[in-house]
Amino acid sequence: MLSMNDLILKKRNGGVLSKEEIEYIVKGYTDGDIPDYQMSAFLMAVWFVGMNDEETTFLTTAMAESGDMLDLAEIREKSDGEKSRIIDKHSTGGVGDKTTLIIGPILAALGVPVAKMSGRGLGHTGGTIDKLESIPGFSSDLSEKAFIKQVKQVGFADMCQTKNLAPADKKIYALRDVTGTVDNYSLIASSVMSKKIAAGADGIVLDVKCGSGAFMKDIESARKLAKIMVQIGKNARRSVTAVISDMNEPLGCYVGNALEVFEAIQVLQGKGDKRLKELSFKLAAEMYMMAVMSDDEKAALDKVNEVIESGKAYQKWKEFVAAQGGDPGFSDEAEKLISVNMTKNVCSEKSGVIISCDTEKIGLASLKLGGGREKLTDEIDPSVGIVINKHLGDRIEKGEKIATLYVNNTDKLEEVEGLILDAYSISDDASDYKPEALIKDIIR
Amino acid sequence: MLSMNDLILKKRNGGVLSKEEIEYIVKGYTDGDIPDYQMSAFLMAVWFVGMNDEETTFLTTAMAESGDMLDLAEIREKSDGEKSRIIDKHSTGGVGDKTTLIIGPILAALGVPVAKMSGRGLGHTGGTIDKLESIPGFSSDLSEKAFIKQVKQVGFADMCQTKNLAPADKKIYALRDVTGTVDNYSLIASSVMSKKIAAGADGIVLDVKCGSGAFMKDIESARKLAKIMVQIGKNARRSVTAVISDMNEPLGCYVGNALEVFEAIQVLQGKGDKRLKELSFKLAAEMYMMAVMSDDEKAALDKVNEVIESGKAYQKWKEFVAAQGGDPGFSDEAEKLISVNMTKNVCSEKSGVIISCDTEKIGLASLKLGGGREKLTDEIDPSVGIVINKHLGDRIEKGEKIATLYVNNTDKLEEVEGLILDAYSISDDASDYKPEALIKDIIR
Repeated sequence: MLSMNDLILKKRNGGVLSKEEIEYIVKGYTDGDIPDYQMSAFLMAVWFVGMNDEETTFLTTAMAESGDMLDLAEIREKSDGEKSRIIDKHSTGGVGDKTTLIIGPILAALGVPVAKMSGRGLGHTGGTIDKLESIPGFSSDLSEKAFIKQVKQVGFADMCQTKNLAPADKKIYALRDVTGTVDNYSLIASSVMSKKIAAGADGIVLDVKCGSGAFMKDIESARKLAKIMVQIGKNARRSVTAVISDMNEPLGCYVGNALEVFEAIQVLQGKGDKRLKELSFKLAAEMYMMAVMSDDEKAALDKVNEVIESGKAYQKWKEFVAAQGGDPGFSDEAEKLISVNMTKNVCSEKSGVIISCDTEKIGLASLKLGGGREKLTDEIDPSVGIVINKHLGDRIEKGEKIATLYVNNTDKLEEVEGLILDAYSISDDASDYKPEALIKDIIR
Repeated sequence: MLSMNDLILKKRNGGVLSKEEIEYIVKGYTDGDIPDYQMSAFLMAVWFVGMNDEETTFLTTAMAESGDMLDLAEIREKSDGEKSRIIDKHSTGGVGDKTTLIIGPILAALGVPVAKMSGRGLGHTGGTIDKLESIPGFSSDLSEKAFIKQVKQVGFADMCQTKNLAPADKKIYALRDVTGTVDNYSLIASSVMSKKIAAGADGIVLDVKCGSGAFMKDIESARKLAKIMVQIGKNARRSVTAVISDMNEPLGCYVGNALEVFEAIQVLQGKGDKRLKELSFKLAAEMYMMAVMSDDEKAALDKVNEVIESGKAYQKWKEFVAAQGGDPGFSDEAEKLISVNMTKNVCSEKSGVIISCDTEKIGLASLKLGGGREKLTDEIDPSVGIVINKHLGDRIEKGEKIATLYVNNTDKLEEVEGLILDAYSISDDASDYKPEALIKDIIR
């Protein structure tokens, strides 16, 4: 008979746990038979000793199977008798990351069904559900049946993660959060992948953010996490590609919930920020390639550009919004969405070239304006946020506008301005700026 | 403001905790403000990272101060206006270790007050309180006042650890026991020393057992633990000496509660096993030297031998037993104490020289006979146990008696015989026997 104390000792002493042992731990903890104090000691031992890819896969699968496993078979059936491959997408979290809002409609327009479950924002990172809910009337609270029906009809649906999706992960994550065991590759990777595997897609494109606004600050750690997640996916017989993308400044120019929807609509209308378009289209192309099992990147990108230029993607966006109860008219006059009590410009205190951005501070500034949450139970203000006027490498003059704040409550305005000014480093010497590639690596 | 999650992270990342931080953890955990799951994650981080001597001292002191601190000032007052130094003694736990029963009366006879608090046995190791309670009428449940009065009048008292002695240690120990965090030097050392420091003595002689029947199996780990405990004691301004003694076979010839009292009486009467006498007298001499602040070992040993030969130590034993309610007549006819339903000889299955003993198995055999506990709530049978007929290095013939079992309940008799036979390794080649010193090292 297995004993949790023995398994703690085994891991602590450098042992490799079997599938059966890991399932015992995950099931025992989820059912409440293993107490928090044994689980936290175990997690700390994992933090020190690590888990190999096989153990991490067992952990992921056990967490995925701790709750509902979505059955998307109905979506796969096509009228011509062929089967669609369903591709999911996940971002490890950044600032200004609204790619899902752009990618979902693109894929739907290309005939690739996207059945997406998203989360809410926490801390300096935003969440797709919060962004979508800034649309008047929009609901992310769908039944599984309605969700599947919408994907079949529209090609894209995005619902809030169901309560019973990977409950083991929820319980373990809450414990890690208060026991100093968050930052471990196997634990992070299994947390992400358990939800993706339970969500039922055939393939997953991961956007692993890397830089000052991401959990992974450098390319080595981003690559390590990406490789583990790709390996878990393969072990669980899913196609997985990880795109490692730059998060050394916010993605695009808009940070905040309604503001990000506004920017996504601009891209879907063929306008918008260059870097945001580049990454969104790249991720969409990767998903398309995975869906049709092709490795022709150029052809995939051409397809993506086609549905943008033809307006088909934008049309799908409007169908998607309407299907989830959103006001269908709002998209064509989306600037109405971003009305606030006041806007305030933050102006540079010196002249020079912007050489770096502490992106987490920009995320925190948006949170302090009311656009984010410190705790999951906090209410958010969907309208507030930041419009960024300058990117890394841009020249700025003293007194020139670096960003504009969208404000409803002025309580923390001074603190927010301080965060924005602190976030940017400005140098007299343009050669201090070292440009970073937007797409740093792709792990397949 | 301190946060437990931050302190877990600090220790996990290799940090050194301050006095204030360690006090925050110990007090918070004892008071119930810090939950078990954070404490166990912290203890696991300590297991991996360790604590330096200063941190270990802070931990020890905080645990000692978590409950009652015994005030022995009254005992120190002597009629001549001088002050006695009060010396305590602690063994890290072994099999057949009845030295306290011998040492207490010796020291009392030498005019050195011994105010001893002892524990009960658990697992393969015995406890002094269980041994004493095999004496008809004997009570270990004294009030602090009665305890101090007895030490003043008789020179020796031994009571069960009070409930409120180092309650933080009790709570932390119970958690370590189920979270794979028992075997860490700082945690073991602080657990022992917190109780000794709370017990109020000026000096402590530690008997650190080393070998197959001890927690420390080899001399390096015994020495490491001893050094940490001596350093903690010095940091807490107590005199501490650690004697590292052999536990590669039971100490003496008798294992079991009444049986060990019987053997202790033999030694107090000037008879008894050579190794038991050697270690008991050495520990008593160390305590005497510490009490009178002398470093003359020979003189101290002579004093010890004097009170044995004169019968003064035996007389003190009888006074001590009577003071705690024990039948004063029993000691002179102690063989009555060891009457059981049946005795059974365990005979060797081969001839040769005994080259090693898995001492833990002997302790377990006594436990299985009913003389010990698996859980602290188990009842014990004081009369049962094992009389050992052969020591390491002795020659034995096939069919010759290796030990005699003292039995009341025959349920596990076969298992017990198996344990005894398994415990001893017998070789044809006498040169396979490598004698070990009884006293392996002394750390001051």
